[in-house]
Parts: sequence; C-alpha cells; structure tokens
Amino acid sequence: MFERTAIIGIGLIGGSFGLAAKRAGAVESVIGVARSADTREAALAMGAADEVTADPAEAVRGADLVYIAVPVGAIRSIFQQIRDSLEPGALVTDAGSTKREVMQAAVELLPDHVTFIGGHPMAGSEQSGVRAARADLFEGAAYYLTPGETTTQDELNRALALVRALGARPDVKVAEYHDRLMAATSHLPHLVAAALASTTHHLVSGQKELGNFLGAGFTDTTRLAEGLPEVWRDIFLSNPDNVAAALDKMIEQLEQFSAAFRELDSETFDRLLEEARRARRELLD
Amino acid sequence: MFERTAIIGIGLIGGSFGLAAKRAGAVESVIGVARSADTREAALAMGAADEVTADPAEAVRGADLVYIAVPVGAIRSIFQQIRDSLEPGALVTDAGSTKREVMQAAVELLPDHVTFIGGHPMAGSEQSGVRAARADLFEGAAYYLTPGETTTQDELNRALALVRALGARPDVKVAEYHDRLMAATSHLPHLVAAALASTTHHLVSGQKELGNFLGAGFTDTTRLAEGLPEVWRDIFLSNPDNVAAALDKMIEQLEQFSAAFRELDSETFDRLLEEARRARRELLD
Repeated sequence: MFERTAIIGIGLIGGSFGLAAKRAGAVESVIGVARSADTREAALAMGAADEVTADPAEAVRGADLVYIAVPVGAIRSIFQQIRDSLEPGALVTDAGSTKREVMQAAVELLPDHVTFIGGHPMAGSEQSGVRAARADLFEGAAYYLTPGETTTQDELNRALALVRALGARPDVKVAEYHDRLMAATSHLPHLVAAALASTTHHLVSGQKELGNFLGAGFTDTTRLAEGLPEVWRDIFLSNPDNVAAALDKMIEQLEQFSAAFRELDSETFDRLLEEARRARRELLD
Repeated sequence: MFERTAIIGIGLIGGSFGLAAKRAGAVESVIGVARSADTREAALAMGAADEVTADPAEAVRGADLVYIAVPVGAIRSIFQQIRDSLEPGALVTDAGSTKREVMQAAVELLPDHVTFIGGHPMAGSEQSGVRAARADLFEGAAYYLTPGETTTQDELNRALALVRALGARPDVKVAEYHDRLMAATSHLPHLVAAALASTTHHLVSGQKELGNFLGAGFTDTTRLAEGLPEVWRDIFLSNPDNVAAALDKMIEQLEQFSAAFRELDSETFDRLLEEARRARRELLD
C-alpha cells in the first residue's frame, strides 16, 4: 500500500501504528522520529521502525505516507518543519484528539502537492511511550477520519484502507462535528473527573485512614484524572469553545442539584436522578 | 451468637446478611420481613430466611437480633412500628448509607432496654432484590459501625463479632464523621456522575451514531448514575448539609476551569490537571 512511511512521534500510538501497519503488510519500510535517543532505540529494538532519526524533515524525504503522532499542540510546529521536504503525492495524516485546529493548520502550512486527512484513533492505554506499543492497539477501535475540503474520494479511500488494515473501524466525520461531539463525550468527562478528584481531596484533607471510604465508585468516577496533564491541556486549548460551553452546561446541571438541596425537595431529586439514569442508558444502548 | 434474628427488608443486603450469618453459624433462625409476597417466597426458597412475614412488629417479638435493611428514608417508620414489640436486651442494627439521622431516630424512638448500633456495609451490586443476594457479599468489604452515646464496650464487641462473622472488616466511627466523609467520597461522586450523564445527553441530543464517540471514559465516569433514584434521593436528603457543601466546592473547582478557558491559560490548565492527578493518587494509594 505504501513504500516508505515516516512516523513522527513514535510513542504509544506512533509505535503501535508502525507495528500494526507492518504486520498487516500495509507499509514496506518505516522511519521513526523521536527526540529522545532512548525512544529511538526502543522503537528499533521492538521492530516498530526500521530506521530512526531525530529530524522530521529528514524522515519525510522520499516517504509516501507521513503519520504524525505527537500531542495536538505540537502538530503545527511539525508541519512547519516538514513542509519543504514532503514528497509530491504523499498522504499525510495525524492522530490528534481534536481536529479543527490541525485541519486549519494543514490548509495554511502544507504544500498543495500532498494530501492531508486528519485522523483520530479512539485507542489508548493507561501506559504511554513506545514500550507500551502493541500491534493490536487499534483492533476493533473506532478511528475517525476528517477529510479536507479538497480531498478526493480516491485519496479518502486510500486512508480508509489503511485504517482498516490496522483492524480499526473507520468513521468519516467533518472536523467541526468531531470536535463538538468529543467535547461532550470525552473532554467534559475528563475535566469533571479531574475536578472531582481535587474536590474530594480538598474535602477530606487532614483525615486519616481513608482507604475504606474510597470505594469503586470514587475510583471509577475519577479514573480519567490519571491522563497526562500536558496532553489534556493541549486538547482543551485546541477545542476551547466547545469544552467551555459543555462546562457551563455541567455547572448549570449541578446548580439544579444545589437548588434541590436548598429546598430539600424530594421530587426534584427523583426527577434529576431519573433523568440522569435514562440519559446514560439512552446514550450507551 | 444469636438465637432468633429478624431481618427487616430482606432484599439484596438483608438477604445476603441472612445467608452469610447463617452460613457462619452466627444466627440460629431467621425471620424475614418484606412487603412483597414474591420477595418473601424468594427469601424462603433461597434459604435467606426460615420464616417470613409482612409485619415488622410480629418479626421482632422474641428476636435477640434485629437487622434493618430498608432504604435510609424508611428506617424511622420501621422504628415506630417495632418499638413496642422489641425484646429486652436485643441488639438492633441497620444497614443504611448515612448514619446521623438514624442514630438520632434511635435515641428518640427506641426503648432503653435495647441496644442500637448503626451499621453501614460498603457492599453492594449492580443488581438489587433478594434474588441477587449472596452469602459472600460482605467478604472483604469495609463495614462501618456507629455506636451510640450509651453503647457499652460489651455491646460493641457483640456487633464487631457479628460483622467479622460475615467476613467483613469492621471499622468503628462516629456518625457525624462517617456522614461527612461519605459526602466527599461517595455521595458527591454519585451526584457528579448523574449530572454528567444528563449534561452529555443534553449536549448531543439529536445526533445519531453516537456509539463510537462514547468510549470507556464516559462509561466509567457516569457508572454511578445507574443507582436507584429512590435510594440516592434518601441518601442525599439524610445528609443534605454535607453533600450541599461538597457540591459547592465542586462547582468552585469547575469554575476554576471556566476561568482558565476564558484566559486560554495553559499554565492554569497544567496546574489544575497536575493537582487533580496528584490528589487522586494520594487518596487511592
């Protein structure tokens, strides 16, 4: 499918892409890019890349596929570093969690002789780094693709075939829609989990022997707060209007509970809790 | 340990108590109380009770142990129904999720010739009803006991031995402390999960094909919203000052994120997310 692939940012996602794409025979040879020598060595040793370099521009020379798997906030700078070295006809894609900003940057910064299609694999792990990479990371996972305004059907089909080769389920969406839905279903839950962890910590500070009080409920509800701060800061900052609007709505919803406490109104509690239960079931069914 | 035990409210918790206490040889014979004939039949068939009745007063006559496992909001009414039929020297305990209100009601309503010690087993299941009862439900679970002001050490020791016989880990706490800590570690997470489920539902309403967007993050963060509304309404209403104060603090925390979005301030996001991560680890370690 592709002869020479450059993976820029060969960590958990980039490394898993290398392993999966090579296993599927979708790519011939892979050059991996990482700033850290340790990561480069590990990527080689694991077989996620056949060659490595620290220089993104060097990596993309002669590559017909460029897979960018750096944090969302660093993609624009990668575009600037590779733009003059990209091969005509190359397919360029990324693995960022938000898509509007990167689509806009691609239009501004990438040459017309390459195709950029945004990507967002809904796959991950509690761990990070190339040593956590796995050839089956994408298997069965949803994988969003966001074509640009000038993307042709042939170009999109190439990207779809690549995603299917990873074992993932591709889903084509407009970047604006993707980011709005992600704010409601992923970015807001993350922010809420983080705020809850901090709030509970504040409320119990100074108390000893909390182990028994903290059950599976607290553990599950705050699990997302374990995400890497620098990754999530980038996600929030690249989707600020949508996440801020979702957050306002969340605060409104909590204020309805506040009002029920002021009135000690049992019917309001019943209604709010019943609505929440029904809402979750409708969403997950 | 006990000759005749009355279990008032023989559902998931009451039924599991019957099975566990009988298996451990801690109780001799059990009379189970339920309003529904179907529940009474199931409790008998499963061996959670040897006799059944719909009448709490009848059940407690001659019982040296009374185990009340009805929703928190119904305990006061049970006290009123059984107070004139309780056997002198009987140990009365409950399984309610909040403890101040029930301790107060026991002082007001129960005769001096019985001992009341509050109980809160930190055990449960996604299911409810006596058919979900299991002899091992309490195994390894924390089990709070809240003695009253006049409880003697001998009486407390009896309750401790009973809880240990279930396989649970007893932990003695003052009711006020218990309720304050539960607000922060359990009641607030429940309320937040419910508010998040409703908020996300509102934000995506009218959108189709949401399945791919709703990943493990949303599922985990909102799991608690599946709790029974009538049970949680009672819990909130029996701990309103603590939960309302926790909720205020949560809204404050979310407003710090709101401010970061207004300023698009990357350092504030880093700080808030790093604090949240550290908070969760400190609490769960």
